[in-house]
Amino acid sequence: MSNIIQERLSSLRALMAQKGIDAYLVPTDDFHSSEYVGDYFKCRKFITGFTGSAGAAVIMQDMAGLWTDGRYFIQAAQQLEGSGVQLFKMGEPDVPTIHEFLEKNLKSGQCLGFDGRTVSADEADKLSAMLSKSGVSISCGEDLIDAIWKDRPALSCEPVKELAVCWCGKSRTDKCGEIRKAMRDKGADVFLLTSLDDIAWLLNIRGGDVHCNPVVLSYLAMTEDKIFLFANERAFPAEVKEALAADGTELRPYGDVYEYVRNLKPQTKILLCKAKVNSLLVSSIPQNVEILDEENLTLLPKAVKNPTEVANERIAHIKDGVAVTKFIYWLKQNVGKIPITEMSAAVKLESLRAEQEHFMGNSFDPIISYGPHAAMNHYSATPETDVPIEAEGFLLADTGGQYLEGTTDITRTIVMGPTTDEQKKFFTAVLRGMLNLADAKFRYGCRGLNLDYLARGPLWEMGEDFNHGTGHGVGYYLNVHEGPNGFRWKVVPERNDNAILEEGMITSDEPGYYVEGEYGIRHENLIVCKKAEKTSFGQFMCFEHLTMVPFDLEAVVPEQMNERERGLLNTYHAKVYETISPYLEPDEREWLKESTRAI
Amino acid sequence: MSNIIQERLSSLRALMAQKGIDAYLVPTDDFHSSEYVGDYFKCRKFITGFTGSAGAAVIMQDMAGLWTDGRYFIQAAQQLEGSGVQLFKMGEPDVPTIHEFLEKNLKSGQCLGFDGRTVSADEADKLSAMLSKSGVSISCGEDLIDAIWKDRPALSCEPVKELAVCWCGKSRTDKCGEIRKAMRDKGADVFLLTSLDDIAWLLNIRGGDVHCNPVVLSYLAMTEDKIFLFANERAFPAEVKEALAADGTELRPYGDVYEYVRNLKPQTKILLCKAKVNSLLVSSIPQNVEILDEENLTLLPKAVKNPTEVANERIAHIKDGVAVTKFIYWLKQNVGKIPITEMSAAVKLESLRAEQEHFMGNSFDPIISYGPHAAMNHYSATPETDVPIEAEGFLLADTGGQYLEGTTDITRTIVMGPTTDEQKKFFTAVLRGMLNLADAKFRYGCRGLNLDYLARGPLWEMGEDFNHGTGHGVGYYLNVHEGPNGFRWKVVPERNDNAILEEGMITSDEPGYYVEGEYGIRHENLIVCKKAEKTSFGQFMCFEHLTMVPFDLEAVVPEQMNERERGLLNTYHAKVYETISPYLEPDEREWLKESTRAI
Repeated sequence: MSNIIQERLSSLRALMAQKGIDAYLVPTDDFHSSEYVGDYFKCRKFITGFTGSAGAAVIMQDMAGLWTDGRYFIQAAQQLEGSGVQLFKMGEPDVPTIHEFLEKNLKSGQCLGFDGRTVSADEADKLSAMLSKSGVSISCGEDLIDAIWKDRPALSCEPVKELAVCWCGKSRTDKCGEIRKAMRDKGADVFLLTSLDDIAWLLNIRGGDVHCNPVVLSYLAMTEDKIFLFANERAFPAEVKEALAADGTELRPYGDVYEYVRNLKPQTKILLCKAKVNSLLVSSIPQNVEILDEENLTLLPKAVKNPTEVANERIAHIKDGVAVTKFIYWLKQNVGKIPITEMSAAVKLESLRAEQEHFMGNSFDPIISYGPHAAMNHYSATPETDVPIEAEGFLLADTGGQYLEGTTDITRTIVMGPTTDEQKKFFTAVLRGMLNLADAKFRYGCRGLNLDYLARGPLWEMGEDFNHGTGHGVGYYLNVHEGPNGFRWKVVPERNDNAILEEGMITSDEPGYYVEGEYGIRHENLIVCKKAEKTSFGQFMCFEHLTMVPFDLEAVVPEQMNERERGLLNTYHAKVYETISPYLEPDEREWLKESTRAI
Repeated sequence: MSNIIQERLSSLRALMAQKGIDAYLVPTDDFHSSEYVGDYFKCRKFITGFTGSAGAAVIMQDMAGLWTDGRYFIQAAQQLEGSGVQLFKMGEPDVPTIHEFLEKNLKSGQCLGFDGRTVSADEADKLSAMLSKSGVSISCGEDLIDAIWKDRPALSCEPVKELAVCWCGKSRTDKCGEIRKAMRDKGADVFLLTSLDDIAWLLNIRGGDVHCNPVVLSYLAMTEDKIFLFANERAFPAEVKEALAADGTELRPYGDVYEYVRNLKPQTKILLCKAKVNSLLVSSIPQNVEILDEENLTLLPKAVKNPTEVANERIAHIKDGVAVTKFIYWLKQNVGKIPITEMSAAVKLESLRAEQEHFMGNSFDPIISYGPHAAMNHYSATPETDVPIEAEGFLLADTGGQYLEGTTDITRTIVMGPTTDEQKKFFTAVLRGMLNLADAKFRYGCRGLNLDYLARGPLWEMGEDFNHGTGHGVGYYLNVHEGPNGFRWKVVPERNDNAILEEGMITSDEPGYYVEGEYGIRHENLIVCKKAEKTSFGQFMCFEHLTMVPFDLEAVVPEQMNERERGLLNTYHAKVYETISPYLEPDEREWLKESTRAI
């Protein structure tokens, strides 16, 4: 692999020299600021070999660098080895950010290049403001990777389906009515929406253009009486097309959105989110059109699940809980007896999920990681890395499913055999944090920032931590990562995951602990925010566990937990047994009874 | 009182009519955005009768309103009764802010008046931006209260003292050198500093121009080679004047600062904090001078106590702990036997503090509040409100001293006799919160916002809360409230108390619980932020209790605390006994032994 990367880098550098580009930036993004991207868009993977879901590359004549975050430090170091691509560990002391690097290494008269469709308008503005000071120019009109990528996959064109109101709880017409009201409040004539999950949510459509994300490759422009959906018409079955047309949605070719904005009338007010819309599209808007740079109007209504969605999510989590519980039982029964590897275990789990009605596929690539692999906290096994699972230590399984009833995301750390006292100590500490955060009761107005200490406290007490956020918002049969809710202790503005926690928001609660080269622990439930009592002090809020799968008592040290924490675990386990056991075989049910016993 | 207020309002309204002013704003501020102000500046108290430390009044021909915060709702309601001044409870649902009120009630062509010296430049900018939209003008050149306040006190002119380096740990020259370096980094030619505690800190001087705040009424302008101190020369003894002059500080008359800024040369860059500098002063700066609106350069160095200051603060807290412990013992011995009132108790406590070497006075007006009075959480007894303390229920004592070794601020809720189970339940819940916050261990980078849940959790669990921040920064032999550190769960931008917690910052930890008309509970220690271990995850931080006084075990319910919490209390109490007992009489020591027993 490292030789191929070196060849690709040579080709790119030759092209850069020819075009007068001194540094070329290759982000992970597609044209829609998506977190995961379709194969067509995997330019950063193509040019570096790094397969993680986050990161960006910078290539110059005498260097090539990859920037990625703590989740991927170990994986990236392995995948970049021998490629000549240098790893920049984001957030570590003395590691420059991409901006700092470019500012320092580009000189007056030089040029930074990138494909303007893969960089958000906000990011392009920042780069331009910074580099113009030192006389560095920007060239954003060309996709240089395309020129050297001979067998580049085609743009995806998977069939589009409608999602009935019995699943999503609100009709397209009602949603559009509410968004149009918000447009009027903001004084906007046009709302330009380019993030794929927002478009799918608004139109109650689902597709398959991004692996695991049931979205439709498209741009959308909404006016007071029309919706223009820019997408590949071939992806739309006749009945979907008709239903959309009946609700005032006109299909236009995918690439025509650039022409649409170029032709906006003078003095039009167009609302868009510059953090989400790509810079080429924003720069195509005429100067005499007024841009209202705001959050997407769909962001909050999408995150706040309606009562139908919450009720369906509970059902999805029963199905998912049954599948994962059966999986854990199967692992425990068979480990050391039949050959099981990380990849074969993932296949088994997917087959168990597939037995559930309305299962639509994985919500992300399963992370089934054994032993040291689990220390790479977004590891996903490949044929090259796959290892047998043996009857000792921990197996970490972070997986999720898409159902018509919603999206799941669960991590369990499963005891495969003997574990050390240290492993049990950290298993218990992480579990305490997970349970304490889920048990928070708080005044309305709190954000994830106010509550994150609850999850980290048991580790911080020991001078330990984990290098990732504690939780992220989750979509409804949509993207497994969505804003604006989340749990973390430091604001990261570009993540936009620090909103006030609203009734109906679904967030993951997933602290972890990792020892490089040895093992990894993570416990993850999805929790839904609910109203608790309203008192003279105001509205109190709390969470409800959606995920229904036991935590492995074999690694729990009860003496490390206080009475309240043991109570939280026992109450949760009793609920798991009550909820899941009716759907199990007798032997599984007997095992679950024992596995959810009070401690 | 209410008749006097009505007369004053009539005089003011007549003057307003004459001047063409439709609404007159009277803030609490002096000319320096001080929290507490000298008697000369108490215009808001003069015109409304409300004596609290925070609030603002608006007077129109047909209304008079006072806005204040949750600490003062009960007190303000009592003091405003019959005056015709309406109470606006800030932060309550459906209560307009002053801005909302003015925006709604002032019409095009009308005029808002205020004394521009008592309103910060930031605030004046906001008012002006808001009101100019609706055609309302602003008149800020006149002090109308002055015209009707016949026996207004003179400006304070208390003698100025130098604070030796053995107390404050760093010479004036060293401090000025550091601030000048910061000026160069920011490209500033002049640094204009008008907040009184910052000036006192920078020049190592202390005065007495504000009740309980040992500051000197002054403005300061610093250039690369000069310091101009605008103050009343008569306040400066010859030796202080000479020492200041030797370090390059030139004294000028107090009011001359306006002329100084008017005469700044074109293109000068002046750094100032518009949130702190008054609007008349900022508007006196010529248009061709560039204003760099930044935090005061002194803010962070003042808040981060140096090792000498921290060591001295420990000593101050031993002295203060001895005085308060003796006070509690005296109360317990004498309640029900000799007449004690809130005011006489305060006199007793001050006399005990005065027995300590280097005691310089109270750091704020003592809040000794018995029974229902304690529910007004910043109540300070007056001859009209003073009540006898009887042998039942709680006495809340929130008091503090100024010592050469630092500033103290402590609250204890003292059991005077029988208490109810409910009172004990909340006493214990508040104590758990206090102990848990002080025991936090956290990654460097955390702010008060990340930790506040620790203090409120035990109350929030029950749907209960308290209507004030959990903690504030404390000065070194300076103001008892200072930024930029603090504990609260929601950011309040104008309070500027959400900085990253740095080693050496001293913050109060003071959750409470209040039942209007019945009782109040608050437990307050000062805690200093310290470095804990540095691990592969980075620097960890923790706190150390400075305050050394027992919590009243008579109202503690041990069964409500978990083992860890009981351990925290027992460890703290053992430390209190070890630290304080050598300075007590035998009977006091015996009582302290029993009062700090392990539970």
